[in-house]
Amino acid sequence: MKKSIITISRQFGSGGRTIGKKLANKLDVPYYDRELIEKVAAKTGFSEEFVEQKGEHSTGSNFFSYSFLARDFNGGSVEDYLWLEQRKVILELAEKGPCVIVGRCADYILRERRDCLNVFVHASEKLRAERIVNLYGETADNPKKRLRDKDKKRAINYEYYTDQKWGASENYSLCVDSGIIGIDACVDLIIYTAGICEN
Amino acid sequence: MKKSIITISRQFGSGGRTIGKKLANKLDVPYYDRELIEKVAAKTGFSEEFVEQKGEHSTGSNFFSYSFLARDFNGGSVEDYLWLEQRKVILELAEKGPCVIVGRCADYILRERRDCLNVFVHASEKLRAERIVNLYGETADNPKKRLRDKDKKRAINYEYYTDQKWGASENYSLCVDSGIIGIDACVDLIIYTAGICEN
Repeated sequence: MKKSIITISRQFGSGGRTIGKKLANKLDVPYYDRELIEKVAAKTGFSEEFVEQKGEHSTGSNFFSYSFLARDFNGGSVEDYLWLEQRKVILELAEKGPCVIVGRCADYILRERRDCLNVFVHASEKLRAERIVNLYGETADNPKKRLRDKDKKRAINYEYYTDQKWGASENYSLCVDSGIIGIDACVDLIIYTAGICEN
Repeated sequence: MKKSIITISRQFGSGGRTIGKKLANKLDVPYYDRELIEKVAAKTGFSEEFVEQKGEHSTGSNFFSYSFLARDFNGGSVEDYLWLEQRKVILELAEKGPCVIVGRCADYILRERRDCLNVFVHASEKLRAERIVNLYGETADNPKKRLRDKDKKRAINYEYYTDQKWGASENYSLCVDSGIIGIDACVDLIIYTAGICEN
């Protein structure tokens, strides 16, 4: 069946967010990234900065650090609460109709929906390092370390809440190398794929 | 740039080989699988059955068992010799022109070629189990165990010779879920991708 909801997971610096924006633009559907953060912030009372950071990144430097997060009297951490609220917002947004959602484990949260295409965007470390220095004005000091740190935190957060391996091809219907395929070609490729899925 | 050589790596039962054959047929280019085995067998003196088995599967049940393989006086095992000869044949075949090559670490062996598109095909375990029972007449006894065993051996072989993780999205330009996208749609999608790559 044709897929009308597209989730984009991405390595830092791979251009996944740009692809998501261009995709939504070309398909003329809502693009949820900032809006999602605002909604979660409004619901939870956390600041947008807090939601932006904690909603997708682990606090600690490894998987086990999650076990030592401060707990409230229900045994849940602030991160767990944020995860539950963020999950609700993503489910509600998907109910509204066709859209593009970037990050935040949306692929996992929407896994029961048959109208959802889960995409993972990656690129070589070399290309991504160049990209974050050129586009985001990251310091050219040690961009590769910055990439690894950021993706490690995303991976830990993803694996903690989904029990799946972040970036493992089997978790996504489509994985693309934005360095080889190209940003704009990836957009066209995703639209093409969403239109031809048989199941 | 347009990609004219397509390598297909695949989970057992995902339909990757069928996709490769259909792809070669539609593109009207050679499909190397059986022919590759025959060439390697002729070059090495091993039987085709031996090449078929050992050229893609580990002997042992884990990565370390490779360390205990019988060695000849040059310190190489029979498997290492087969790997080197198979590698030569794959490099030669790619030199001949456009083609589709299935399995045998061709993605890694041809990684320096810019005209090469590396594809990984996967599908849910449920679908793959049904497929091997229906199509290959595998016993319906414990098809999931059979899938895991076969893929584990492929993964060990791949990781031993390439130092890369088999099935990790970052090793392939394109990864597709043949269960969701569909076999024929995957063929079209790969052709589409090969034609639009920007780099």
